[in-house]
Amino acid sequence: MAEKLVKDITSMDEDFAQWYTDIVTRAELIDYSSVKGCMIIKPAGYALWENIQKELDRRFKETGVENVYMPLFIPESLLQKEKDHVEGFAPEAAWVTMGGSEPLTEKLCVRPTSETLFCDFYKNIIHSYRDLPRNYNQWCSVVRWEKTTRPFLRSREFLWQEGHTIHATYEEAEERTVRMLNVYADFCREVLAIPTIRGRKTDKEKFAGAEATYTIEAMMHDGKALQSGTSHNFGDGFAKAFGIEFTDKDNTLHTAYQTSWGLSTRIIGAIIMVHGDNDGLVLPPRIAPVQVVIVPIQQAKEEVMAKAGELKDRLKNFRVKLDDSDRRPGFKFAEQEMRGFPLRIEIGPKDIEAGHCVVVRRDTREKITADLEGIEEFVGRLLDQIHEDMYRRAKEHLDSCIYDAKSYDEFKDIIENKPGFVRAMWCGDVECEDQIKADTTATSRCMPFEDQERISEVCVCCGRPAKHLVYWGKAY
Amino acid sequence: MAEKLVKDITSMDEDFAQWYTDIVTRAELIDYSSVKGCMIIKPAGYALWENIQKELDRRFKETGVENVYMPLFIPESLLQKEKDHVEGFAPEAAWVTMGGSEPLTEKLCVRPTSETLFCDFYKNIIHSYRDLPRNYNQWCSVVRWEKTTRPFLRSREFLWQEGHTIHATYEEAEERTVRMLNVYADFCREVLAIPTIRGRKTDKEKFAGAEATYTIEAMMHDGKALQSGTSHNFGDGFAKAFGIEFTDKDNTLHTAYQTSWGLSTRIIGAIIMVHGDNDGLVLPPRIAPVQVVIVPIQQAKEEVMAKAGELKDRLKNFRVKLDDSDRRPGFKFAEQEMRGFPLRIEIGPKDIEAGHCVVVRRDTREKITADLEGIEEFVGRLLDQIHEDMYRRAKEHLDSCIYDAKSYDEFKDIIENKPGFVRAMWCGDVECEDQIKADTTATSRCMPFEDQERISEVCVCCGRPAKHLVYWGKAY
Repeated sequence: MAEKLVKDITSMDEDFAQWYTDIVTRAELIDYSSVKGCMIIKPAGYALWENIQKELDRRFKETGVENVYMPLFIPESLLQKEKDHVEGFAPEAAWVTMGGSEPLTEKLCVRPTSETLFCDFYKNIIHSYRDLPRNYNQWCSVVRWEKTTRPFLRSREFLWQEGHTIHATYEEAEERTVRMLNVYADFCREVLAIPTIRGRKTDKEKFAGAEATYTIEAMMHDGKALQSGTSHNFGDGFAKAFGIEFTDKDNTLHTAYQTSWGLSTRIIGAIIMVHGDNDGLVLPPRIAPVQVVIVPIQQAKEEVMAKAGELKDRLKNFRVKLDDSDRRPGFKFAEQEMRGFPLRIEIGPKDIEAGHCVVVRRDTREKITADLEGIEEFVGRLLDQIHEDMYRRAKEHLDSCIYDAKSYDEFKDIIENKPGFVRAMWCGDVECEDQIKADTTATSRCMPFEDQERISEVCVCCGRPAKHLVYWGKAY
Repeated sequence: MAEKLVKDITSMDEDFAQWYTDIVTRAELIDYSSVKGCMIIKPAGYALWENIQKELDRRFKETGVENVYMPLFIPESLLQKEKDHVEGFAPEAAWVTMGGSEPLTEKLCVRPTSETLFCDFYKNIIHSYRDLPRNYNQWCSVVRWEKTTRPFLRSREFLWQEGHTIHATYEEAEERTVRMLNVYADFCREVLAIPTIRGRKTDKEKFAGAEATYTIEAMMHDGKALQSGTSHNFGDGFAKAFGIEFTDKDNTLHTAYQTSWGLSTRIIGAIIMVHGDNDGLVLPPRIAPVQVVIVPIQQAKEEVMAKAGELKDRLKNFRVKLDDSDRRPGFKFAEQEMRGFPLRIEIGPKDIEAGHCVVVRRDTREKITADLEGIEEFVGRLLDQIHEDMYRRAKEHLDSCIYDAKSYDEFKDIIENKPGFVRAMWCGDVECEDQIKADTTATSRCMPFEDQERISEVCVCCGRPAKHLVYWGKAY
């Protein structure tokens, strides 16, 4: 049975896409529904999202963010107020045209994102400098009518948080935009053990209606990029379109400045594709719904179950599951591997006699004999160690899959033959981005914050003077 | 300024409906949106919902419930599978008919409730007795195209949780149905300080598709009823309609049994209308986003702010806000009253000198001089006391507004002249319910669990032999 469980996963080297699909279904994260492109998030998947929510929500609130809830629907006229925004989102909008048995006088868009609703709200509540700033966030689902869909990565409905803030000055908005990007990057590093590259999107890739979009880009095991969180500075574009003005201290009227920032269930796709292996999920300990599974060996023996129960009680500061089902230990081991629980503790009569237990790491398969005395501290330290090791391995993978290209031939060769990101200089023109995408399917991921090296003086595509260093890659 | 804040609320004795509307907007719980019938839940309102979620979610999980997330949309053909269900919900469904620029081949209903989606899911995952029971819940928003709407009480979109469970036997489903009703009743009593009457709905008032609906009914300050949570036993009706079968231990095929149960943001309406008064909200301490607001008196004095800050630190086990804004104390007092924070602590130079502070209860306005020494325990005890007192007053109000009617004239006289519930016997026929509603606008609220008294042998409406004791009342 244990054997069978494992064999049902396609090897990631053979077919990465199929490996991914196998994992999301076999680890019971999702199920497909009758509604094309919409997934059912099952308990194991939703528990991940709950832990992500808890951690992020705490971090947001520490920066003074308050949660609200906006309507699910956007009247067509409201969506149309900001020109770039409607152009970006109308093509993939789902429209409600009937309420009960009657046609609506104005059709309603099921929110793909809520900038327009927040603007409409701000217009009512922002009058004076005393009303600023406002730092709002909402946890909700959004809808985008995608043609091709994949669980977590691209679905017609997904769960996310969308933060929306409004400020008196451009500088304050910019400061908030970068601050929230850093919250995402810190969260990925400290909680998900995922290293990311922070940077600015090119105009072609930025959010519809934004002045600047910042992004964190993570690298999946197959070398592809996954945009894992974005933060947008809108300048006063939306405020002008919606007429959001406030009286400043000097009694003059000013336009306000806005930001928005979001992270979605897509990040679960990143967890799978950064950490997973050929036996299943490998969950970062700080987000794992079950951190430790205790598997009693020869559980029919009374002293085994008593000791296993005692162990569970002692580990109460962790998320522990005692698997006392009537399935065989081998099956339970395979389940731990498939579901990615960071630690498994095996305890049987011989262990009890010797005063120890066997601890098995999911990430390395390492088996450790650990004294029962002091097991609480041991498990705590080990979970931290697993987190650090998982981060280090992901960082090494990221670093080892970044290549420099000075010529276009070199660029094309790398994209075709080496999974990963390419660092190359760019002139700043969208024509070169379009050309590169047409030739290689790679897109500009970001103009990095930290990495300002000028690896060449000319654009890798057109040879004209270069303006920016850009990370390029194939992306989900 | 303090005066002004208070005067803006209509007195509840003058116009209860207007009082309610004044509270929800002036206490900044909601704002109206451009989308007719959909509300914006502002931070003070959403924080209440977050605390409700946290408490209920914990109680659900203690009974073995797991959270999931189902799609927002229901294909028309799926909604139509259970006859009573579609009849109940189709008339108020919102329909998505366009995805992007293309008409859909099958229109999609924005979920009004998710029984049909869960059934579709169960059909895929339930095969053997080993797959049962499943105890699922989801937190989400649902849409019902109501004609007349009121904040929290009836809106086109609202937030709720919907639990859905599936079992091998009718008895197990019934046990779960009653268990979850009791979770709601306990939550209302222990957390919201709201007494409720538990009972069964008549067939006329039960959920579309349910075999039995159980309800908790609360009494608002104006004597009207608010259905505050419901739990449904579906028997095997849905399972038969969807073909959900499992192989039992004896290797024979059986139909499964289901339940669902829900509580929504409507409960915030109950909190307002059970506890509020003419100066604003009165929040039950265990749900209040701010339990204690500290108002420094003569805050320009350094020692005042130091002591106020120290007090805040010492009360860190409570949800405490230190109001150090530059507004005058009177304004801050009025704000505490409007927003319903259970306790206000005033601390000024004289208090500090005397080693005490002034604690003011929101519910009774009582001012208490309390020693700074031991203030943590004092505040903890006082918050518990406030909870108990609020519950007791609400219970006294409920008990004092229940009247018995043995004749139909008596019944009509009470409904017309006395706010509250009427206890009266009923023959069990829907014709009498219809007649009573037509004559008095009162509806049957429930056939109570605890209260089995037969106050007469005949139906209060038709005079035929009585079957059930029923609580009747006007309702929100």
